[in-house]
Amino acid sequence: MATTTLKGQPFDRPILDSMLRRRMFYTPSFEIYGGTAGLYDYGPPGCALQANIVDLWRKHFVLEEDMLEVDCTSLTPAEILKTSGHVDKFADWMCKDPKNGEIIRADHFVEEVLEARLKGDKEARGKGKAAEALKLDDAVVKEYEEILAKIDNYNGEELGELIKKFELKNPTTGVEPLPPVAFNLMFQTTIGPSSKALGYLRPETAQGQFLNFAKLLEFNQQQMPFASASIGKSFRNEISPRAGLLRVREFLMAEIEHYVDPEGGKKHSRFHEVQDVELVLLNRHTQLAGQTNVEKVAIGKAVADGTVDNETLGYFLARIQLQHMANEMAHYAADCWDAELQTSYGWIECVGCADRSAYDLTVHAQKTGAPLMVRQKLETPISITEWVAELNKKLFGPQFKKDGKAVQTAIEALSQEQRETLAPILSRDGKITVEVEGVSNGKVEVSKDLLVIEKRTRVENTREYTPNVIEPSFGIGRILYCLFEHNYWTRASDGGDEARCVLSFPPTIAPTKVLLVPLSGHESFKPLLKYMSLKLRSLGVSSRIDDSSASIGKRYSRNDELGTPLGITIDFQSVNDKTYTLRDRDSTKQVRADEETILAAIKSLVEGAKVWADIEKELPAFEGQEADLPVR
Amino acid sequence: MATTTLKGQPFDRPILDSMLRRRMFYTPSFEIYGGTAGLYDYGPPGCALQANIVDLWRKHFVLEEDMLEVDCTSLTPAEILKTSGHVDKFADWMCKDPKNGEIIRADHFVEEVLEARLKGDKEARGKGKAAEALKLDDAVVKEYEEILAKIDNYNGEELGELIKKFELKNPTTGVEPLPPVAFNLMFQTTIGPSSKALGYLRPETAQGQFLNFAKLLEFNQQQMPFASASIGKSFRNEISPRAGLLRVREFLMAEIEHYVDPEGGKKHSRFHEVQDVELVLLNRHTQLAGQTNVEKVAIGKAVADGTVDNETLGYFLARIQLQHMANEMAHYAADCWDAELQTSYGWIECVGCADRSAYDLTVHAQKTGAPLMVRQKLETPISITEWVAELNKKLFGPQFKKDGKAVQTAIEALSQEQRETLAPILSRDGKITVEVEGVSNGKVEVSKDLLVIEKRTRVENTREYTPNVIEPSFGIGRILYCLFEHNYWTRASDGGDEARCVLSFPPTIAPTKVLLVPLSGHESFKPLLKYMSLKLRSLGVSSRIDDSSASIGKRYSRNDELGTPLGITIDFQSVNDKTYTLRDRDSTKQVRADEETILAAIKSLVEGAKVWADIEKELPAFEGQEADLPVR
Repeated sequence: MATTTLKGQPFDRPILDSMLRRRMFYTPSFEIYGGTAGLYDYGPPGCALQANIVDLWRKHFVLEEDMLEVDCTSLTPAEILKTSGHVDKFADWMCKDPKNGEIIRADHFVEEVLEARLKGDKEARGKGKAAEALKLDDAVVKEYEEILAKIDNYNGEELGELIKKFELKNPTTGVEPLPPVAFNLMFQTTIGPSSKALGYLRPETAQGQFLNFAKLLEFNQQQMPFASASIGKSFRNEISPRAGLLRVREFLMAEIEHYVDPEGGKKHSRFHEVQDVELVLLNRHTQLAGQTNVEKVAIGKAVADGTVDNETLGYFLARIQLQHMANEMAHYAADCWDAELQTSYGWIECVGCADRSAYDLTVHAQKTGAPLMVRQKLETPISITEWVAELNKKLFGPQFKKDGKAVQTAIEALSQEQRETLAPILSRDGKITVEVEGVSNGKVEVSKDLLVIEKRTRVENTREYTPNVIEPSFGIGRILYCLFEHNYWTRASDGGDEARCVLSFPPTIAPTKVLLVPLSGHESFKPLLKYMSLKLRSLGVSSRIDDSSASIGKRYSRNDELGTPLGITIDFQSVNDKTYTLRDRDSTKQVRADEETILAAIKSLVEGAKVWADIEKELPAFEGQEADLPVR
Repeated sequence: MATTTLKGQPFDRPILDSMLRRRMFYTPSFEIYGGTAGLYDYGPPGCALQANIVDLWRKHFVLEEDMLEVDCTSLTPAEILKTSGHVDKFADWMCKDPKNGEIIRADHFVEEVLEARLKGDKEARGKGKAAEALKLDDAVVKEYEEILAKIDNYNGEELGELIKKFELKNPTTGVEPLPPVAFNLMFQTTIGPSSKALGYLRPETAQGQFLNFAKLLEFNQQQMPFASASIGKSFRNEISPRAGLLRVREFLMAEIEHYVDPEGGKKHSRFHEVQDVELVLLNRHTQLAGQTNVEKVAIGKAVADGTVDNETLGYFLARIQLQHMANEMAHYAADCWDAELQTSYGWIECVGCADRSAYDLTVHAQKTGAPLMVRQKLETPISITEWVAELNKKLFGPQFKKDGKAVQTAIEALSQEQRETLAPILSRDGKITVEVEGVSNGKVEVSKDLLVIEKRTRVENTREYTPNVIEPSFGIGRILYCLFEHNYWTRASDGGDEARCVLSFPPTIAPTKVLLVPLSGHESFKPLLKYMSLKLRSLGVSSRIDDSSASIGKRYSRNDELGTPLGITIDFQSVNDKTYTLRDRDSTKQVRADEETILAAIKSLVEGAKVWADIEKELPAFEGQEADLPVR
């Protein structure tokens, strides 16, 4: 658990949360109507932060790797999500409280009650003396801990058995909930005027990308491997969302689908560029045991010794780690599939990195007949010898009539071994018996005038294969929340004892880069404010003017909360000699220089070419605003 | 109708459409499943074009005007859209064909059948001799034309009467459809595990902005006027969407809600900056009459003479016009509320510019009690004298018990005139009779120990008002489609007679700015390709390499279709002396210079600082690739 801030102070989540809402980084949606769990709006600074993260992500992945970005619809007809398996399987288990009708997520319920009991046990054993403290048998403690370690793996029936076995009761009502039932997490609607045209809001952006695979391959001039990418909203109807921005019902995702030949070990041509990148690789077991201080390992070594399955997966894990470092996100860990960030809520999966194999492309191709595959021209043609079962279609159809299709399918499904066994029988008896489900008594005779079975050799110039998909999938909202926690700290107020919040976002992602403050409301400052604001805009640097009547200190601390890294003060000396002071949010140190020098310093800081320490060395320090200097 | 291309050639929509799909600007969603009407995906070039338009829009409006951008959820509880009026009124009229069950939009149906009859009449009168040509009476022609001119204004009953009166039949089945019924255009779903929690997908981004008004005003430090803005998806369940990207069920909107004091003529502080901007202002009548060649008028004059209602509305119309000019979109017209673009489908509303008055803020405030209003400190306090009706709450409650609230509401609702009349009666009779709906017999007696009615004077230091909202609302997908039509033309192929498509996007919004083509697959070109690609990326200029085996000409024409404005050819001379040729998409002219000069030229073109004519003057022309020069 991250129990300290960036500067090692005790971390107090309610203070951070209240500041984030007050400064409108985010706000519960429809709050004046009482709000709706799991739905949040981003206000101006949250919106800008989100846009900057998306922009960085797009540069780091889409542009750097020439990915094919697509923008597909959220509305999705039911048939597609039926094929992908989401209609049948994308569900959580929920329980209803028979007393108050409350609906709770079964696994979370079991987890919470068992954790509360373990906490009570700890208190009863130790010095804590909570009212509910109740000592448990050592064997029970061990059993609870084992259940919690694999809580994600239970199905509904098993969760129901746990509730019964341990007599788990809803703390609100004191009664045991009803047995778990499956609840599909997709939002259902109908598309068009007919109530029969069922549809869902997509639970991931991936399906839209898969359905366009053939067109994307064509767009990429049939070259493999390649990746598509998509940034967009997805929707999951969580049963009882909590944990603020971490578990929401509508969220921005950035997903990459990298299509790779399943043969040849899933190599990646740029793997050598990242092979020395070091990662903290934790398997789930180590992580649950709380051992987070394990050693770093180079991704090259991890792929070589099999810890990470293949180069392509390893390449993306390293690239995710590199973006993480660029953004200075703290506390990172990845196992083969998840990249998790540490927060006050525990380790949170922010990036999933899954090998989806050929599953999705295969099921959609089977369902629609669309060729979601790659035809690779072989440099050396290969000859293939195999048993062929060839039907005489002219005679076959008339004989079997409506059963023809079923019989044909059964014959085509015969394995090489079966064909080898049947061939001599067909030539000896002049007929064979084939099992066909649902036709006559399940057995059909086929005579040799309708069917030839023989070994043949053919030469292939192309190879057809369904690509495998490596999918790095980013939850932008979760990354955003982690950035809040990891960049938050407090400092004592100048005069009082009230702690002031600071969000030390790196300049590259800060919502606003520069705060412009005039020393006072004096008319002579106005033209300079406007001038500097236009200058910064022409450099592509976002700025904000605060010319309210609050004190300079108050205006700065307001913008420290917004994470604005730099501040320019316009004072009477500025009016006289066009010099400005530049303030650093984190150290509150100031330097003073002429316009050109200040603008150059800002640009280098915002682009990440320099850090504040460089600027402090180069420019003269400034100690206080000369508020009483007259305008000459 | 736009019946010609940019270069005056006959405009052939099917050719453009097929090219746009082939190059994956857009594609019907779920096409391998047969597609779903009104849902489209953007492929890589469409996605990049969309991102560039959004980026320009954000710079032109949000950053330039310091608007407060928010990102609100699409999922919206039913109660909110009930309050806003969408649940009751956001509907179209639909008819069912009793024979084949087809569902058609009633107004479109009437329109299509009447237009077909008028077309038949024209052919019968003229030289055309279509099978269905049928001459109509002059009076009937006139009546049809009048109906078509106001087709948007009929309600369901009236549309039903038109269908009956003119015996309008579905061309597919030959039968008259059933009477129109209302069909709500919002997609319905449920939020959370209870089936009772109805919700909708938002039909506009506006409501989310309105609900956050109080917080946004606070964020803006209580300063008026200000604007919020939002870029995001909205959803409308169109009955039978046609017209490709112009009428879709899921679309990207960019909406501005500008909050302004309803008093003082809705002035705008920056109006003087735009007052000389000229617009073609057409009222709906002129437009329907087909008179599009009317004169331009300066917005300052239009506001002064009342053609445009107020400065704020005028300011946004001018700013919309300025962005339009920057993007070189052709054929623009605006009446007071719509900005329309001309396409082969006719004039299309791409930007709505509405004065929503105080409606939305008022209904949400009434429903929730939230203070969606501005408290303005008055420089000079004002004294207000009025009739006050004051209840003695201590005695009032116990007397009326459960009816108390209703009686109180009725008394508070008494007008100034009623109070003036009732005051002497109360003092004379010691009681008055008040009408209260639903309480006893509708009349309630209130005695003077419970109520005082008298004239009082009070001094107000603040003024409270609900702002009015001016809303410029942009349909990004429609603007995107107009850009396709307005930038499309064809040129004859070099060798053959097949026409080649060109999309002449301005460099600022083109999906990719530079195409990098090596003269051949020769190994010596590879390092230079990579080098130039990195150079361009470091300048923030997007590029794409085409090193396929197709001829240079073919590779260029492929990218002319993608709208790539510039091309760099890397040939053997480049390997020797680091000079490159730069090609202009529109003229196909080329210049040659060293790396630094070429990169500077590209940057100035992409930023809009120069046009190709400038570059041609500055740099030496290049006539053909020197393919056979050996590598030294």
